[in-house]
Amino acid sequence: MRPQVLIIGCGFGGLEAARALRAADVDITVVDKTNHHLFQPLLYQVATAGLSAPSIAAPIRHLFRRQPNVTTLLGEVVAIDAQGRSVTLKDGARLRWDHLIVAAGATHSYFGRDDWAAFAPGLKTLQDAFEIRRRVLLAFEAAEREDDPARRAALLQFVVVGGGPTGVELAGTFAEIARHTLPGEFRRIDPRQARVLLVEGSPRVLQAMPEALSERAREQLTALGVEVKLGARVTGIDAQGLDITTAAGAERLQSRCIVWAAGVAASPLGRALAAATGCTLDRAGRVVVGPDLSLPGFPTIQVIGDLAAAQSHAPGREPKPVPGVSPGAKQMGRCAAANIRRRLAGQATRPFRYRDYGNLATIGRNSAVVDLGTPAGQLRFSGYPAWLFWLFAHVWFLIGFRNRFVVLLDWAWAYWTHDRHARVVATANGASPAHDAQA
Amino acid sequence: MRPQVLIIGCGFGGLEAARALRAADVDITVVDKTNHHLFQPLLYQVATAGLSAPSIAAPIRHLFRRQPNVTTLLGEVVAIDAQGRSVTLKDGARLRWDHLIVAAGATHSYFGRDDWAAFAPGLKTLQDAFEIRRRVLLAFEAAEREDDPARRAALLQFVVVGGGPTGVELAGTFAEIARHTLPGEFRRIDPRQARVLLVEGSPRVLQAMPEALSERAREQLTALGVEVKLGARVTGIDAQGLDITTAAGAERLQSRCIVWAAGVAASPLGRALAAATGCTLDRAGRVVVGPDLSLPGFPTIQVIGDLAAAQSHAPGREPKPVPGVSPGAKQMGRCAAANIRRRLAGQATRPFRYRDYGNLATIGRNSAVVDLGTPAGQLRFSGYPAWLFWLFAHVWFLIGFRNRFVVLLDWAWAYWTHDRHARVVATANGASPAHDAQA
Repeated sequence: MRPQVLIIGCGFGGLEAARALRAADVDITVVDKTNHHLFQPLLYQVATAGLSAPSIAAPIRHLFRRQPNVTTLLGEVVAIDAQGRSVTLKDGARLRWDHLIVAAGATHSYFGRDDWAAFAPGLKTLQDAFEIRRRVLLAFEAAEREDDPARRAALLQFVVVGGGPTGVELAGTFAEIARHTLPGEFRRIDPRQARVLLVEGSPRVLQAMPEALSERAREQLTALGVEVKLGARVTGIDAQGLDITTAAGAERLQSRCIVWAAGVAASPLGRALAAATGCTLDRAGRVVVGPDLSLPGFPTIQVIGDLAAAQSHAPGREPKPVPGVSPGAKQMGRCAAANIRRRLAGQATRPFRYRDYGNLATIGRNSAVVDLGTPAGQLRFSGYPAWLFWLFAHVWFLIGFRNRFVVLLDWAWAYWTHDRHARVVATANGASPAHDAQA
Repeated sequence: MRPQVLIIGCGFGGLEAARALRAADVDITVVDKTNHHLFQPLLYQVATAGLSAPSIAAPIRHLFRRQPNVTTLLGEVVAIDAQGRSVTLKDGARLRWDHLIVAAGATHSYFGRDDWAAFAPGLKTLQDAFEIRRRVLLAFEAAEREDDPARRAALLQFVVVGGGPTGVELAGTFAEIARHTLPGEFRRIDPRQARVLLVEGSPRVLQAMPEALSERAREQLTALGVEVKLGARVTGIDAQGLDITTAAGAERLQSRCIVWAAGVAASPLGRALAAATGCTLDRAGRVVVGPDLSLPGFPTIQVIGDLAAAQSHAPGREPKPVPGVSPGAKQMGRCAAANIRRRLAGQATRPFRYRDYGNLATIGRNSAVVDLGTPAGQLRFSGYPAWLFWLFAHVWFLIGFRNRFVVLLDWAWAYWTHDRHARVVATANGASPAHDAQA
């Protein structure tokens, strides 16, 4: 029997690890909670009705159809037995492994205020994207039916919490929808009067970017019609709005549509791993891994992607934390696969080294910021050229020829017509299945 | 103030009625439970992962953006006041009208066995389509994880109840998915061993078709790998399968994926209308309308589409019932609009006359049957030419240039690759939000 490699999670890290083991003499099992690999960088476009879900989600087993050493299973791992080398799925089934790669990713964190989740959904899964799409579109629908001016204004106030890439993208796109997509379709309200607020706790947006680009991003957001509130701490969220505190004092923002893009917490599987191996978790619940991404004392268990608190080890330099971005996850996936091949060949594993090719974020139509590391030094630009660069980079990395083509087509259509074709809310009457389940 | 026209429901009938009043000197309000007009003839392709939802669903207010006399409202009408000329929405809001067009459509009927609904969902809404897509795809996923051969076989047995157009389309496409889309993607099961059954109570499928074409359809279904059980009455459905009775006796079919395409019942709004006006409902709950589609004694209330039990009045011929197909609904919509215009001009209304341009149904790849009324007599054909005809007819009637193009593209892709791009189940772990809500 060939060595059994088990990969938990098929995001960027897990997918890349499985692919990098294509030619290895192993049997690979990929377990994921959903049936699809999600191209998360474009998930905000599903949430804002610019793309339909199948354009950015590919069935996992379809991606592996020509890789016979991969078996795909739909299931949720709930426990890990590090000594007995097996995992337990939610329905009680067990899978054994010789080499384990844990790539279970991250989820939202409300910093201990999980009661906020019902009023301010986050954006990690397709289900989240549909929920945000539903709330945004139905807020305009409710405003069209509302006669009271104060309630109408509250319905037309959208708040995004968190000024990272996702928050900036969502806020910029909300403003675009209000200013360009919807006008002309309503008879009682003017969608252009919608107010979009971006609330960020630190003094600038896009903190991973150089300060000058953060400032460009803030300017571009403002030009798109987003009100950016920096240094604003959220102190409460309820069904009617949220409370923030800034240098100017406390403020209440009425809103029926709040999106949470502020906090990320590692998958709960980190705790299962800590219980099984005694490994250390950092404050965000991420698993502290060794230089080769394996767990101290458990060389056959590697943790990658957003679940790993990993360091980049460049020769002759101090180790540096790896940022939680998709290139990081992919590179860790390749490193984990290479280390399994090396171990099978009786060689020593190699430390992980993160290569930073740069950082880009889009803000809205014709607006983006780009920060690239080139051999000639840092290349920084913003505005229209940055937006074009962002666009082609994302289409390039999107999986599948068909999806690339369809997404380009959707974008061209949206660019010329200002229409967003996926403005469909499946549930009747605006009922939210998630809400029904909670009720 | 201009006369107020209220249209309840924006399916084929309601949409056509509102459009036909484009130039009329009236204010139109269109109320619908969802935010989209649905191209129902292709809904089975969303259920079978061939198309994504936005390809066949257009936001209603987007369709009316260039018709300034239409106001679109999202809401569910629960009561009608015929004397006071108003309707009440679910949230208590009231809308008044001078002319009312009720086009609320139909829903599934389980012939008094509503307890079957949980085990055999029907196909009327996008939410239904997602639920069927989820069940079909997750049945294959569960089979891949199942070790017990009997349970595995039950998971790979798909039953469609009802041999009308929707049942035939669903069964044909399920067979295609099992035989052409999925093989090569599973490691433990062979999807080609899936069994697809079509259960029909009458002696033939597609009863609206001439007998010879029904027989062609049955042959084509068999060729695609569907087992057609005619004259089979369903006596019970539960979570594990269904019981049927045929001439050969009682039979039990194990299945974890049953789809109900057998019965149609009019919208519950028919009962509200009967309560308000004393009008008659037929056995399927449809409102019996007068020759001009109005209610006896209430000339300003017209009922159209699947909710109406209407007759076609051709000069010099016996009145004939109008079939429940989309051309019927559209023609009624135009007739209702014309009658409102005539009443406003002080003219007498005209009786509804249904023009039957023919009947077509597709079965699967390269398979369809067509029955057209031409000046030279009935034109009947089947197989590949009928399939091409079906394909272009459906793309032609699909709303919006963009959607036509995208659907053609999706179909061309699927035809060449056998891939179905929308094989995405949004919920994690295969949990069904609808189920959670029930639980």
